[in-house]
Amino acid sequence: MKQVKVSNNVIRRLPRYLRKLDELSESGIDKISSRQLGELLGLTSSQVRQDFNCFGEFGQQGYGYNVVSLREQIAGILGMDRGFTAILIGVGNIGRAMMENFCFSDWGVQLVAAFDIKPALIGTEYKGVHIHGMDTLEQYLSENKIDIAVLTVPKTVAVSVTRTLTDRGVDAIWNFTNVELTEPSSTTLVENVHFSDSLLSLSYFVAERQDEAAAKASREVK
Amino acid sequence: MKQVKVSNNVIRRLPRYLRKLDELSESGIDKISSRQLGELLGLTSSQVRQDFNCFGEFGQQGYGYNVVSLREQIAGILGMDRGFTAILIGVGNIGRAMMENFCFSDWGVQLVAAFDIKPALIGTEYKGVHIHGMDTLEQYLSENKIDIAVLTVPKTVAVSVTRTLTDRGVDAIWNFTNVELTEPSSTTLVENVHFSDSLLSLSYFVAERQDEAAAKASREVK
Repeated sequence: MKQVKVSNNVIRRLPRYLRKLDELSESGIDKISSRQLGELLGLTSSQVRQDFNCFGEFGQQGYGYNVVSLREQIAGILGMDRGFTAILIGVGNIGRAMMENFCFSDWGVQLVAAFDIKPALIGTEYKGVHIHGMDTLEQYLSENKIDIAVLTVPKTVAVSVTRTLTDRGVDAIWNFTNVELTEPSSTTLVENVHFSDSLLSLSYFVAERQDEAAAKASREVK
Repeated sequence: MKQVKVSNNVIRRLPRYLRKLDELSESGIDKISSRQLGELLGLTSSQVRQDFNCFGEFGQQGYGYNVVSLREQIAGILGMDRGFTAILIGVGNIGRAMMENFCFSDWGVQLVAAFDIKPALIGTEYKGVHIHGMDTLEQYLSENKIDIAVLTVPKTVAVSVTRTLTDRGVDAIWNFTNVELTEPSSTTLVENVHFSDSLLSLSYFVAERQDEAAAKASREVK
């Protein structure tokens, strides 16, 4: 499969295709055209075809896509078959929520350990994952190859923990701390989950819509 | 302040500007040029100026921006001064994590109530927010104007709860359920938080980087 540098927008759409294909598959649908798939996701059929063309040939002109095999190909592109390992750092509310509700293995990632500073948590298991003391993190990383660190620590320690992770060769950080971690070195990737950005974008659209409704109402009065 | 239809990409950058300006402000910096602000966010200075130009004049050519007043203007554009109200539906792990750790009021939103079906939770308070029974949701919405519903219910009830919310005129849904809620009507906005999309994008980049490193290593061996 050809794999050239692909635009960020295309990459961000791949997980959406994957989710939609999973839904179709669950509904017993085994074939879909680029037009139908596009309609379900608010994209044009040519957009869908162009996205997939970045990675080679996925379907046959006029025959549509096989849902299961397209899903497998996208899963492969997204690295879901690589057996990536992850650790979670900070077993507070958000850390616990992720351990309990987010099924890492559904997405091809194995959550192998968690770390915290609270003595009451250290040495226990949560949802089948062992919780280690933070003071053993460096040792652990020197003995285990970890691809992804899920960062759910308090804001105040985000930067120092990140330094440890990058020094010890963790490839990627999934950052829930709301601290903008500038890529600390060229070898560590950072994916930020900023809840506030998401809420504020929504808030912008609510304000816009309410303004439009108010303007419309005032025109109608006149 | 002029406010025309602005592209989604610009809107998505506004919260990032806001966060960065807050950081600058905390560090005691009171003036910044578009070039400096751009550098901090990985944008060009002309990109920064263009973004702000969508909303009118924010600074004076050659003098840079006043950090505090730029922050206030962006906050206003994002609707942070509108006094938006929110309810949270589903006080499970992720719901609790949001109630405990996410400071809604920092972003101009007031979390006024929560809803759940568990008898042990109903009638109690969590972090100062009263938890109501789900069966009182419709009644509550008919008596209170709610702008935003934070949807942290299990996947299985996401669609039915959404229907209640839209029927009762909630303007916007902040959706944590990982169910793709297609906008159920033209009057309800949906902002999806898809953790899996975020993880899979990261996973893509990890795979890409590991492939590059492997290719480099194999060239060096030859």
